[in-house]
Amino acid sequence: MPSIAVPSSPVSTTWSPVPTDGPILLEELQLAARNHGMPLEALRYDITPTGLHYLLVHFDIPVVDPNAWRLQIAGNVEKPIELSLERLRSLPGITLPVTLECAGNGRARLQPRPISQPWLDEAVGTAHWGGAPLSALLEFAGIRPDTVELVFTGADHGIEKHDYARSLPLSEAMRPEVLIAYEMNGRPLEPQHGFPARLIVPGWYGMTQVKWLTRIDAVTQPFAGYQQAIAYRYKTGAEDPGQPVQRMRPRALMMPPGFPDFLTRHRIVEKGVSAVEGRAWSGTASIAQVEFGVDGNWQDAILDQPVGKYAWRRWSVTWRAKPGEHVLSCRAIDADGVSQPLDQPWNWQGMGNNQVQTVAVTVR
Amino acid sequence: MPSIAVPSSPVSTTWSPVPTDGPILLEELQLAARNHGMPLEALRYDITPTGLHYLLVHFDIPVVDPNAWRLQIAGNVEKPIELSLERLRSLPGITLPVTLECAGNGRARLQPRPISQPWLDEAVGTAHWGGAPLSALLEFAGIRPDTVELVFTGADHGIEKHDYARSLPLSEAMRPEVLIAYEMNGRPLEPQHGFPARLIVPGWYGMTQVKWLTRIDAVTQPFAGYQQAIAYRYKTGAEDPGQPVQRMRPRALMMPPGFPDFLTRHRIVEKGVSAVEGRAWSGTASIAQVEFGVDGNWQDAILDQPVGKYAWRRWSVTWRAKPGEHVLSCRAIDADGVSQPLDQPWNWQGMGNNQVQTVAVTVR
Repeated sequence: MPSIAVPSSPVSTTWSPVPTDGPILLEELQLAARNHGMPLEALRYDITPTGLHYLLVHFDIPVVDPNAWRLQIAGNVEKPIELSLERLRSLPGITLPVTLECAGNGRARLQPRPISQPWLDEAVGTAHWGGAPLSALLEFAGIRPDTVELVFTGADHGIEKHDYARSLPLSEAMRPEVLIAYEMNGRPLEPQHGFPARLIVPGWYGMTQVKWLTRIDAVTQPFAGYQQAIAYRYKTGAEDPGQPVQRMRPRALMMPPGFPDFLTRHRIVEKGVSAVEGRAWSGTASIAQVEFGVDGNWQDAILDQPVGKYAWRRWSVTWRAKPGEHVLSCRAIDADGVSQPLDQPWNWQGMGNNQVQTVAVTVR
Repeated sequence: MPSIAVPSSPVSTTWSPVPTDGPILLEELQLAARNHGMPLEALRYDITPTGLHYLLVHFDIPVVDPNAWRLQIAGNVEKPIELSLERLRSLPGITLPVTLECAGNGRARLQPRPISQPWLDEAVGTAHWGGAPLSALLEFAGIRPDTVELVFTGADHGIEKHDYARSLPLSEAMRPEVLIAYEMNGRPLEPQHGFPARLIVPGWYGMTQVKWLTRIDAVTQPFAGYQQAIAYRYKTGAEDPGQPVQRMRPRALMMPPGFPDFLTRHRIVEKGVSAVEGRAWSGTASIAQVEFGVDGNWQDAILDQPVGKYAWRRWSVTWRAKPGEHVLSCRAIDADGVSQPLDQPWNWQGMGNNQVQTVAVTVR
């Protein structure tokens, strides 16, 4: 056989790599080649064009026959129900603009670097999601009073712990803006975004938004599945059970100004007045302020109205760019006064990293 | 300022990195996070869903106002013309399924590894492209007889050599299936795929398919722009002017069977009869044969009809999977008898690498 670079590790059911200051691994590159971030110039759009929305697929995109597909709602309910896609689409529906971000966004900027999907800054996107409110389906099934959580299972399947599954507390699941979505930007979901139907929980990180949904089970004990109890946790080390990853922390990103070099993505900006813009969002409170920094000197940005209650908000500044090398930054502050950290936050799995973005530019 | 990992190299106008056996660079990861390959399970679709089609953007996705946009056809012509989008769309049009592949596909598997967009196997996709035949526009403009090439310029702009531009010999440009495309899969082009219009040259690698087209110039001398004379060349070393990269070499890819581990992408396959399938294509001659290999033992695959004259062809085999570790491969052979190499082909910039794909699996 030819000599081809293949991953050095065989099967990682027991491989839990330790964060490293070492080089980027082929395993990380493989994930980066499959999954994709939103190129940051797409921050210009209120609604991200479909193919530019960030995408993380844990295993493989599954094949789902829309005619055979059924959504089961079962477990601790009075009346288990089974919905066809046709029936789901016939229910009263709503459409909301929602910003989604991967909980691992920023992971590859951490030092030492947790080994997983190696996002830099770009694991975000905003879409119009259309579907039926989950609360109506749950009321129809009759959730019993001792229910504590709903468990959502997708059709995607991996070695680790079989089908992808995540839970939500009942109070979150009953929020009127939580959807079983079957449309993205006015069209049926693309296969990679969960066709035929997925969960949308505005404000929560992406792992919550279970795609290729097949089952919803009401349970009387907190769910302890792999993606709930092990994978998506804020941990200080391998042995720490950690705290659950839930809502998106406040974050601002900028469209890198000027134009890039192909290979390094380093930017050239012409001297003089330059308009800089970006977007800010938070799952915990509304965005109250965005600051723009040049070499560590901060100024307030102008905020537009949010695209929606659960979607990002455009910000902009006028920058008088002086010749030389500069480092630009931006940071969001929410209505509770919580701002993005300047110093590196760190956790074992690289979750919820909302450290400020920096962009190096040459002004000429 | 916080300590954040930023690329070590400033501006690479003069940085021409040497291929390396060393670790993957942050510059490569940055490109992998922006651009995206087609997850290999999407080989199941005749036509790749829009957001899964491979995407390479050299610089930034430009903003183009479709109302202000004009396509200029000028240079060595009798009658320079300027087309609005409305006018372009009113001309007689055709729609063709076309498979496109990046010339750098497979680059990151080479040893030593050329430093650029670090594709593994997945820089491919097939779409229905709709537009006006270029030949009709050229006839309307009246190409003068001493014209040797057409130069196509896009609106995307980078440090290296200003706007992206590539040329085609006149004989290639006049082929009836060469399109100025304004539709992808029945919808207007997404911004990242060249909105409002792009060139489509069936059979050629992706760098030819100039996006965000603004100008077409007839010229009487071969074009010597950066993307033509330097970037897309088969070179033996830094000083070699090299040979031009043009048509896609034959290639087969398989959908990795079974299901994956999240981190390593290593596959588990259940023992017994397993269906394995994939796609094969070539820009030089039609696909005549695909072979499927298990640990170096090859068998012929069954070929379906091609999706179109310029699109890939599905292949499939039945494999009796025996427990243990196996390496699966596939290779395409075209109607001229040209087959994919088993040994590593290598060139300085990692172009046109069609070495056979290998997939390691554990059968249990």
